[in-house]
Amino acid sequence: MKVTEDILEKLKKTLADPKRFLTSEADLYSFSFDASFGMYKPDVVCQPMSSTEVASIVRIANEYLIPLCPRGRGTSLSGGPLPVHGGIVLDFSLWDTKLVIDEENLIATVSPGVITSHINDAANEFGLMYPPDPSSAHVSTIGGNLAENAGGPRGLKYGVTKNYVLGLEIVTADGKIVRTGGQTIKNVTGYDLTKLIVGSEGTLAIITEATLRLIPKPQASLTAMVLFDDIIDAGSAISKVLVSGIMPSKMEIMDQSSIIAVEEYASLGLPVDVEAILLIELDGHPLAIEDEMQRVKSVCMNVGARSVQVAQDKKEEAELWQARKLVSPAIVKLKPTKISEDATIPRSQIPEMFRRLKLIKEKYNIHLVVFGHAGDGNLHPNIITDQRDKEEMRRVEMAVAEIFKAAIDLGGTLSGEHGIGTMKSAFMEMELGVDGLAMMKSIKEAWDPKNILNPGKIFPVKGQRFELRND
Amino acid sequence: MKVTEDILEKLKKTLADPKRFLTSEADLYSFSFDASFGMYKPDVVCQPMSSTEVASIVRIANEYLIPLCPRGRGTSLSGGPLPVHGGIVLDFSLWDTKLVIDEENLIATVSPGVITSHINDAANEFGLMYPPDPSSAHVSTIGGNLAENAGGPRGLKYGVTKNYVLGLEIVTADGKIVRTGGQTIKNVTGYDLTKLIVGSEGTLAIITEATLRLIPKPQASLTAMVLFDDIIDAGSAISKVLVSGIMPSKMEIMDQSSIIAVEEYASLGLPVDVEAILLIELDGHPLAIEDEMQRVKSVCMNVGARSVQVAQDKKEEAELWQARKLVSPAIVKLKPTKISEDATIPRSQIPEMFRRLKLIKEKYNIHLVVFGHAGDGNLHPNIITDQRDKEEMRRVEMAVAEIFKAAIDLGGTLSGEHGIGTMKSAFMEMELGVDGLAMMKSIKEAWDPKNILNPGKIFPVKGQRFELRND
Repeated sequence: MKVTEDILEKLKKTLADPKRFLTSEADLYSFSFDASFGMYKPDVVCQPMSSTEVASIVRIANEYLIPLCPRGRGTSLSGGPLPVHGGIVLDFSLWDTKLVIDEENLIATVSPGVITSHINDAANEFGLMYPPDPSSAHVSTIGGNLAENAGGPRGLKYGVTKNYVLGLEIVTADGKIVRTGGQTIKNVTGYDLTKLIVGSEGTLAIITEATLRLIPKPQASLTAMVLFDDIIDAGSAISKVLVSGIMPSKMEIMDQSSIIAVEEYASLGLPVDVEAILLIELDGHPLAIEDEMQRVKSVCMNVGARSVQVAQDKKEEAELWQARKLVSPAIVKLKPTKISEDATIPRSQIPEMFRRLKLIKEKYNIHLVVFGHAGDGNLHPNIITDQRDKEEMRRVEMAVAEIFKAAIDLGGTLSGEHGIGTMKSAFMEMELGVDGLAMMKSIKEAWDPKNILNPGKIFPVKGQRFELRND
Repeated sequence: MKVTEDILEKLKKTLADPKRFLTSEADLYSFSFDASFGMYKPDVVCQPMSSTEVASIVRIANEYLIPLCPRGRGTSLSGGPLPVHGGIVLDFSLWDTKLVIDEENLIATVSPGVITSHINDAANEFGLMYPPDPSSAHVSTIGGNLAENAGGPRGLKYGVTKNYVLGLEIVTADGKIVRTGGQTIKNVTGYDLTKLIVGSEGTLAIITEATLRLIPKPQASLTAMVLFDDIIDAGSAISKVLVSGIMPSKMEIMDQSSIIAVEEYASLGLPVDVEAILLIELDGHPLAIEDEMQRVKSVCMNVGARSVQVAQDKKEEAELWQARKLVSPAIVKLKPTKISEDATIPRSQIPEMFRRLKLIKEKYNIHLVVFGHAGDGNLHPNIITDQRDKEEMRRVEMAVAEIFKAAIDLGGTLSGEHGIGTMKSAFMEMELGVDGLAMMKSIKEAWDPKNILNPGKIFPVKGQRFELRND
């Protein structure tokens, strides 16, 4: 429905401070995109700072059938917060007022606008840790992480956002404030609404508070950089380390294109003639990881690594990780548009996926670099292009579609950690089949019959095809 | 609907072997109870051994509106598999034919009738582990564990069944075979149907196969028995150990009544004058746990433990655990009926919960012993009674209701790991509120509009009150 002056007036009254109600063209423009593709202008931006404010806004949206798009800090790579049908953007970035650590129960309670890394920082002060570590953790909000079920390098050992959510406060599509889950690790009282809502990309309910599980912080960590002349050997090393009884906290891979891009960007002295670098981090008890690192070393050398370099101190450790951290800034120097995918496969298929990615790169003559969280099969094929080059963008579209097909073909999934959003909905049926998708849709319809919660996400519209548009 | 001869004939034809179709009175009787209360005779028992058999049975049940109750080995403590409205019991205990370990991907694929401990045994052969360890693991099936989201002592460090499920094959209420999730740890492609179905007690779909995540098996373990003159100090020790940066693999508590019961039963030489025993197991690298055990020892002594005894070898370790293992057999010697609850609370509330349990015990003059998984707040208050004593049973009912109320009052939950089933549905609204329960119900109605999947479980009927009946 059209957002009339009357409705705007009502919406404005829901907020205690009128400064948190934005309608200027400049404001609407700045909330019209995220870190993915496409630009969609909302009718209004509300910046709620309490559950009752959110509930009041939702009741108005429900009455007048106005789309509601919750948003953290807009770092989504899949279009999560984009107001594709206009309406209200609910900007949660100001609502960072609650971050309480309950040391005795190993719990954090947070409001949706809290920056994710601040949770871990606060936990650290009590000798605790909040493990999920998406690359955006220093800028993204926990609300966005919850909506998208964010992952990160530590996913291999520690799991993803969902594994650390004990309970939620939510606002339903008809404006009720409901609590799901609780404060305990074990809870089998009815259906697990908490884990259903986490990762539902704002389409099932609006998250207004979360109770998060913390764990004791590991005492120490050790990092090794392992060079491989053959990327197939890097794949073998990943499996062999795990089966040897060692669970690294991180296992990151960079392919040759990534290495070259970083080296051209920053001259770190990386060997540009190797096919792959593995960065392996162990954490835990200092005596344990020292011994385990010796075994990692011998496992890697046995499968044909060129060399294993173990950081001797924190400074060296930081230097080794620098290579991985610079991949993203390095590749956007090549061309201005970066399409970051997160197709995820069973780890045994990593070598085969690399082979297929190479074929796709050649077939469509695109600039493709691959890096990512190899330990859990969560690769990030990144295509570097220029969105103003229409012809190349058509080739990129075809290449992306083929990457998705390859991932599913190898027993993997469309998205490991970025979400479906607007970017991948066209491929949902390919992975889930008609029936699986229909089961998801029926939950959406039961909880949000008027389709006001983040419409246009996850579910494809009939005949939808994949398109990278940015206009 | 009445199960007519015609329908029976059709059902029989769905099974490749007619021996897996049971209608004799003796057979129906033996499938009419589980390890909880109540006896409900099914009309027929089908023992499917393939997804297509299950799908054929479900389609018939769907057509004629016949209740379907999936069942593993009947160890449920909450009435999970009971055919409360008659109909078909789907006995999965024969279907244990698939147990495949994919060593490279750290995955097990299993059919629903596989005994849970067999999965861990098979994983162990590859240096891997399947962590969930409900006390019933040696007799219960993975299908039952999945339906109930079974827990166990290792829940504290390793989480529960749900944390190890990557994907499912299910049969829907209208007889479609659908796959959810996949083979990867990271998967954010649409809603998480896998984690919604696990723990839904057979009310949303019938699980016919599961893909489970395995982890590297820890190299070593160490156990300590810690004695406390004051149970409050035991509660402090639990939190203090965790905050000191150590995550034990198990932290089990026994109260004085449990200790006395075990000692009278088996004369292990336990001190019957202490208020609590904590059994603490550490697992991991041998050097790490040796050092950590020293810290556990000093933390416990600092909060007032009488003594800490660390097992010096595997034989001593087994002896220490013997005390905990004998609690259940010991207490049923006192009186024949055992009501095992699993009210779970934030761990900081353990001392207060013990205080309240003591008051409840005195108020209703019942025989109450308390033990359980203290590390995650998952206590097992067990009431020992005789179900033939009607007057005592009324007092027991009131005591159980008060235990639930206490748990919820202290920020906990009705059920940590046993499920709701028939036993706790009367209390659902107390914990979840009208709106939370309605959200669950709407999923049930969307997926199973005819209410044929395990009807009479989880959701209370209007005006339902709690009753321990067994007739």
